[in-house]
Amino acid sequence: MAGNTFGTLFKLTTFGESHGPALGGIIDGCPAGISLDFDAIEAEMQRRKPGQSKIVTQRKEPDSVRFLSGIFEGKTTGTPIGFVIENTNQKSNDYSHIKDTYRPSHADYTYDKKYGIRDYRGGGRSSARETASRVAAGAIAKQFLNDIKVTAYVSGVGNLELNTPYHQLDFSEIEKNPVRTADSTMAVTMENYIKQIRKEGDTVGGAISCVIQNVPVGLGEPVFDKLHAQLGKAMLSINAVKGFEYGSGFSGTKLKGSEHNDLFNEDGSTQTNHSGGVQGGISNGEDIYFKVAFKPVATIMQEQDTITSEGKMVAMQGKGRHDPCVVPRAVPIVEAMAALVLADFMLLNRSSKL
Amino acid sequence: MAGNTFGTLFKLTTFGESHGPALGGIIDGCPAGISLDFDAIEAEMQRRKPGQSKIVTQRKEPDSVRFLSGIFEGKTTGTPIGFVIENTNQKSNDYSHIKDTYRPSHADYTYDKKYGIRDYRGGGRSSARETASRVAAGAIAKQFLNDIKVTAYVSGVGNLELNTPYHQLDFSEIEKNPVRTADSTMAVTMENYIKQIRKEGDTVGGAISCVIQNVPVGLGEPVFDKLHAQLGKAMLSINAVKGFEYGSGFSGTKLKGSEHNDLFNEDGSTQTNHSGGVQGGISNGEDIYFKVAFKPVATIMQEQDTITSEGKMVAMQGKGRHDPCVVPRAVPIVEAMAALVLADFMLLNRSSKL
Amino acid sequence: MAGNTFGTLFKLTTFGESHGPALGGIIDGCPAGISLDFDAIEAEMQRRKPGQSKIVTQRKEPDSVRFLSGIFEGKTTGTPIGFVIENTNQKSNDYSHIKDTYRPSHADYTYDKKYGIRDYRGGGRSSARETASRVAAGAIAKQFLNDIKVTAYVSGVGNLELNTPYHQLDFSEIEKNPVRTADSTMAVTMENYIKQIRKEGDTVGGAISCVIQNVPVGLGEPVFDKLHAQLGKAMLSINAVKGFEYGSGFSGTKLKGSEHNDLFNEDGSTQTNHSGGVQGGISNGEDIYFKVAFKPVATIMQEQDTITSEGKMVAMQGKGRHDPCVVPRAVPIVEAMAALVLADFMLLNRSSKL
Amino acid sequence: MAGNTFGTLFKLTTFGESHGPALGGIIDGCPAGISLDFDAIEAEMQRRKPGQSKIVTQRKEPDSVRFLSGIFEGKTTGTPIGFVIENTNQKSNDYSHIKDTYRPSHADYTYDKKYGIRDYRGGGRSSARETASRVAAGAIAKQFLNDIKVTAYVSGVGNLELNTPYHQLDFSEIEKNPVRTADSTMAVTMENYIKQIRKEGDTVGGAISCVIQNVPVGLGEPVFDKLHAQLGKAMLSINAVKGFEYGSGFSGTKLKGSEHNDLFNEDGSTQTNHSGGVQGGISNGEDIYFKVAFKPVATIMQEQDTITSEGKMVAMQGKGRHDPCVVPRAVPIVEAMAALVLADFMLLNRSSKL
Repeated sequence: MAGNTFGTLFKLTTFGESHGPALGGIIDGCPAGISLDFDAIEAEMQRRKPGQSKIVTQRKEPDSVRFLSGIFEGKTTGTPIGFVIENTNQKSNDYSHIKDTYRPSHADYTYDKKYGIRDYRGGGRSSARETASRVAAGAIAKQFLNDIKVTAYVSGVGNLELNTPYHQLDFSEIEKNPVRTADSTMAVTMENYIKQIRKEGDTVGGAISCVIQNVPVGLGEPVFDKLHAQLGKAMLSINAVKGFEYGSGFSGTKLKGSEHNDLFNEDGSTQTNHSGGVQGGISNGEDIYFKVAFKPVATIMQEQDTITSEGKMVAMQGKGRHDPCVVPRAVPIVEAMAALVLADFMLLNRSSKL
Repeated sequence: MAGNTFGTLFKLTTFGESHGPALGGIIDGCPAGISLDFDAIEAEMQRRKPGQSKIVTQRKEPDSVRFLSGIFEGKTTGTPIGFVIENTNQKSNDYSHIKDTYRPSHADYTYDKKYGIRDYRGGGRSSARETASRVAAGAIAKQFLNDIKVTAYVSGVGNLELNTPYHQLDFSEIEKNPVRTADSTMAVTMENYIKQIRKEGDTVGGAISCVIQNVPVGLGEPVFDKLHAQLGKAMLSINAVKGFEYGSGFSGTKLKGSEHNDLFNEDGSTQTNHSGGVQGGISNGEDIYFKVAFKPVATIMQEQDTITSEGKMVAMQGKGRHDPCVVPRAVPIVEAMAALVLADFMLLNRSSKL
Repeated sequence: MAGNTFGTLFKLTTFGESHGPALGGIIDGCPAGISLDFDAIEAEMQRRKPGQSKIVTQRKEPDSVRFLSGIFEGKTTGTPIGFVIENTNQKSNDYSHIKDTYRPSHADYTYDKKYGIRDYRGGGRSSARETASRVAAGAIAKQFLNDIKVTAYVSGVGNLELNTPYHQLDFSEIEKNPVRTADSTMAVTMENYIKQIRKEGDTVGGAISCVIQNVPVGLGEPVFDKLHAQLGKAMLSINAVKGFEYGSGFSGTKLKGSEHNDLFNEDGSTQTNHSGGVQGGISNGEDIYFKVAFKPVATIMQEQDTITSEGKMVAMQGKGRHDPCVVPRAVPIVEAMAALVLADFMLLNRSSKL
Repeated sequence: MAGNTFGTLFKLTTFGESHGPALGGIIDGCPAGISLDFDAIEAEMQRRKPGQSKIVTQRKEPDSVRFLSGIFEGKTTGTPIGFVIENTNQKSNDYSHIKDTYRPSHADYTYDKKYGIRDYRGGGRSSARETASRVAAGAIAKQFLNDIKVTAYVSGVGNLELNTPYHQLDFSEIEKNPVRTADSTMAVTMENYIKQIRKEGDTVGGAISCVIQNVPVGLGEPVFDKLHAQLGKAMLSINAVKGFEYGSGFSGTKLKGSEHNDLFNEDGSTQTNHSGGVQGGISNGEDIYFKVAFKPVATIMQEQDTITSEGKMVAMQGKGRHDPCVVPRAVPIVEAMAALVLADFMLLNRSSKL
């Protein structure tokens, strides 16, 4: 239970370091009988992969998924789906600058202390490259979910915020701009800002909002495995995430009950949705929406002081090809994790009644 | 796996409805040999129990814990610790006003749809009364944690916010005021505000901040069971919670990497702590701090329109004794859940190395 | 994960020592909507309880189950079912003879070494009294299983064996004799033998056979959670069990494939059933049958040499009221564990297909 | 939780069908810092692989393991160990004879009914080829266990039984004969018998005994996860296994307590070992020994009647290269599963005490 498994019934276990031979995972518990659309899976991988636009890392990785089991004649068979994503771009880099050095706000120090050993080539297991496996699995979860629609978009880059309520946005804009925000004007502003940040050799944080539509009533398991609690864990498990809020979120703390309560319509739907589609930890059929906070990427192209594993102070500067802002590529990761959570609760909910 | 278990090695499973005969739980995996301080456990229960001050619900429940197993001659034995908290205050209430009615922003509707049956006496399993079991278990987890200090306090009530950085606060103030905030002046302002809200028959949201000190390096299991991901899930599993952020949180999204990175001191500690004591999902020895958002309590003493289970619109008004603001009593719950998370990761971390 | 939980979806967690205030457990994941027959539950408890006949321990315990949650108006609600069984017969015994002494073939030595502390009053957690909680939970599982019929009977006491194939036996005989064997003549022989053993101050081993009928096709999860693997674990977790075999079992090792293969009928049923109702770890609709081996109870009323916790050799003799042969009272335990396994796989199987 | 994961802390998840591109798995929770001996891992794979002698299947598979993660500079890093074993020998076979036909005593029928779809190329997931992943993982578990020695050997082939107590056997004989029995004379007899069976186009069952030496006191988690219960499950999860007994096993049912009890020596060791090294579910430091029953392989080279998926009766005959007796190649599988169980309990036991 060393933490590399996610889910109870629709269950993903992953492996792989950024500079090892390959990443991959096993999806156990995917129901039999899903006719897979492999192009759709590949499309998700393309949304996450490096090198896709000028505002993301220029590293090149094809990030193609090779499925090894659990699929027969295009359909899932109910047996575990093993898959591998080769690391083709592990050039024999010079890692001497980080071998004995702990990069600030990276996981170098903590991994070394926890395990007494560290794969110093890149971020190793702590690299966001690990999320490629999540996207592959999430793409299959999405196909299981079928009509349930999971849509994420960038709602913040540094101080630039897209605070328009989601139902006033045009989601078809999202994939039209490299930032993956849902507003064409804001897209340009954000893109330019990210380019400027990159020129400064710096990075910047951001936010992603996500909306899940057509959710059936009844998903989520009280009391510890509330739907939003598991969604929160899913999001917080993504690299660089510092916060999660759903429905009214932090701004809901300022409201009164008389303002916050979602009154019913006669059909059981609600007139407002401060609850964010979840009541008592269980989906109520309204849209689920939440927001995820990402800190700026730790690797910057500026010189910083840091320490060696011997505790000596040294100056270091980031090398290589890194994202100036992580959120454009994190959009499919947020969706993938949301899809995995939903798929798991869909299966768990099959046991609620006699 | 219907969601009533929390933790992997230090594991709590709970049961109980607000108006059934009793609540309780089983702690499985608590190491043998802890000399328990039962007064300290009882003190935690008192911090959570209803009726403790004028700004909380005036319901009366002694909320004493009866331990049934796993303890011998004052020490934990390594076998499961079963415990029960009797519901002494379940008067033969008249529930006719909610029996066939779904209260707005409660879990009545979702439970009924999910299970096809609903214990309509009070909130049933969805009542925050369930958290009594968490506090009992958390009190034992705290004793296992020993030197690791978990301190929560109210940092927001409606628009009133205590934004002073935690290291400038005097934690000894917290238990001196009924709001459980860490500033004596703010305490009075908040208390008065809550009283006013109660007079209006309304409720209000709030926020709780929590600080964990003296944490050893190495807690947290990458990649899905990151320390902060599990803390986030723990907090989001508490009734009424809508958001969680740790370290720089949502404000960190606005920073640049050059501003956000925590530079090292030579001893491995960091000069700043935007990371909130966690890097790569693993504790780095700095203080862990996080903030939790609570929505306003849904039961208000004002008339609201709502629907019956038949879908008819009816007017209803809250009855009984409810909290005008949940955060004062939620402080020990936040601490309890944090302690359970830490205890579990302490045990998990014993397996990291050969 | 200290081992006191059984099952994945239909999940039982238990607590309690033989001489503490109470035993009990929590069933989490029992589907909502089961109309419980409480008399049937009580009847199962009576089958297991001490003092029921002259060939079992003469200790007196009412062993009534008090349900604390998860049931409303006679039906399961889908929330966790907490229950308690009080230990009413814990007289202030004199345990000085075992306080510092390890009884041979008991768990005294291993518990003390594992935990560094031991509840020396009776067997503590290692006492078979713990199985009362299993029977209570199994009784509910049986009601969920409905048409699936689980029947166990004593098929061996010492050298006395009832080897008649189960379909030639009259199961209505089982509860008519105190041994719980399925043959009235053998019942008398076995009963007399047990009485003689008791007079000798000795104990004797035995065997229980179990048949599960009306099992739907498809239960069991390959590859590690095969139906028979989980049944085997369930049985081996019962005190004093030394072996498990299903279908052709150990005698199947001597057969050829041409003899052992179960040829199909046109309807998918099989002409023989060496497979024991399970193929590839999944039920095939035929009867599941298996046999469980119980060693003789370790506490005998004869003097034996043993050691103290200081490693000194001392003579000791069993005191108190013990079973001369454990199998008559273990019949409902075997059924309970089988029912728990089946219930869990019933729920798990709901996720097999799209 | 579809059953493809084994273990709690030292945890193996596997994937792969007999005729897909590859098999493999992920070991999560292997402690960091183990210097791996890759030759030893390869040697275990060779013991299991087909084609190694004249009495096993003549299929050719190199069965080399490719490790993809979790190992750096020859040492485990604490991150998940992903590995793949390519299926190089999947010739474009003609499966028309089994595509629509259920082979007797195979898992064809049950998989088809459970999942509504079946990978009909060979046994798919139900093939014993799946155990290659177990052997790879078990080989790593063995290296973690270090001084704990796991030794299995064939103790039965049809009616031929090697009943000599294990401490009178010379374990160095085991790998000297293709049957993997621990007696050179019996080895020849068994080998000849298997050859004869193969000539008949038939198969035969057998038994494997296993001994675990140098086990520390304290392994095993009461009450459901008793050491022997988990060992039993591990063994019963291996293809073709029909029974498990440890210590005195089924013959212990015939003994009296006065005969069966293991009296202590002053140092806590016991004079006899009917308990099989486990008391109360916890290892007591004595040798653990157990026996596993294997049924005859279902695929025989003789014509049998069977049914199609349409329920029509047809004659069929096994094709391809199959084992006439599974036990010689199952010896390393038994050891691997035992090693996985022990490794898991070693880690779990680290949490027993304060």
